[in-house]
Amino acid sequence: MSEQAQSPSYDNDNIIAKIIRGEIPCHKVYEDDKTLAFMDIMPQATGHVLIVPKTAAVELSDLPIEDAAAVMTTAKKVMQAQREVFNRTGIVQLQLNSAEAGQSIFHYHMHLIPTNVHELGKHASTSADHGALSDIAAKLSAAIQA
Amino acid sequence: MSEQAQSPSYDNDNIIAKIIRGEIPCHKVYEDDKTLAFMDIMPQATGHVLIVPKTAAVELSDLPIEDAAAVMTTAKKVMQAQREVFNRTGIVQLQLNSAEAGQSIFHYHMHLIPTNVHELGKHASTSADHGALSDIAAKLSAAIQA
Repeated sequence: MSEQAQSPSYDNDNIIAKIIRGEIPCHKVYEDDKTLAFMDIMPQATGHVLIVPKTAAVELSDLPIEDAAAVMTTAKKVMQAQREVFNRTGIVQLQLNSAEAGQSIFHYHMHLIPTNVHELGKHASTSADHGALSDIAAKLSAAIQA
Repeated sequence: MSEQAQSPSYDNDNIIAKIIRGEIPCHKVYEDDKTLAFMDIMPQATGHVLIVPKTAAVELSDLPIEDAAAVMTTAKKVMQAQREVFNRTGIVQLQLNSAEAGQSIFHYHMHLIPTNVHELGKHASTSADHGALSDIAAKLSAAIQA
């Protein structure tokens, strides 16, 4: 995690912080010095990826702009890979700020979901098969490296 | 509009391009050299704002990273204003890539919607009262300037 001053409301034990520190595994799609991308384990559509900054930010308001730019750079890479792997163009980008908006993990995370916005509300919040997620992560990672 | 090379699929006559050029009015919330923020005239919740880069980009894939960073900087300002004006914390940030995702205007636009993600699908796509939109735009603009 970054050494910079963090939001007083940031909890170092949130699940994304643990994933970034490697204390909890993830199905990794991409990683660089400022960001990490991995499969959402409760996908709203096949290929649902989360992109997180490595810095300790709860949401948009406390995310430094250089980290926001890094998230956008990674998002461009992941979206291109999703389009290649799933042979579809439609990608919904969603990011929730505060519990009142529906945010449930309090580390900034950008969703990139291969779906149509009108389908978003129709997906059940169920856990995916981890073998399937692992396969998808490998395909997306390979598409980014290619 | 930027003079840089633009996506071959970019249509200079899309409605957002016309708004940026001042050919169509908008209820402006904020403007700087790289971005414009204005009220969505078919809001999914009260205070629904669109943030657009001034450069000619269809969606995330052809948005230069410096413009993406500028959009994020403006988004931080607008979100803070929405929270002040509407006295709520929950802000959904949404951005659609391609018609298949539900994108209907082909100039990159980021939605900042004071709502809960689970309410998103419940709003009707109806035009808002322009007097009300104008009032809200003025309040948000004042909150950003303050």
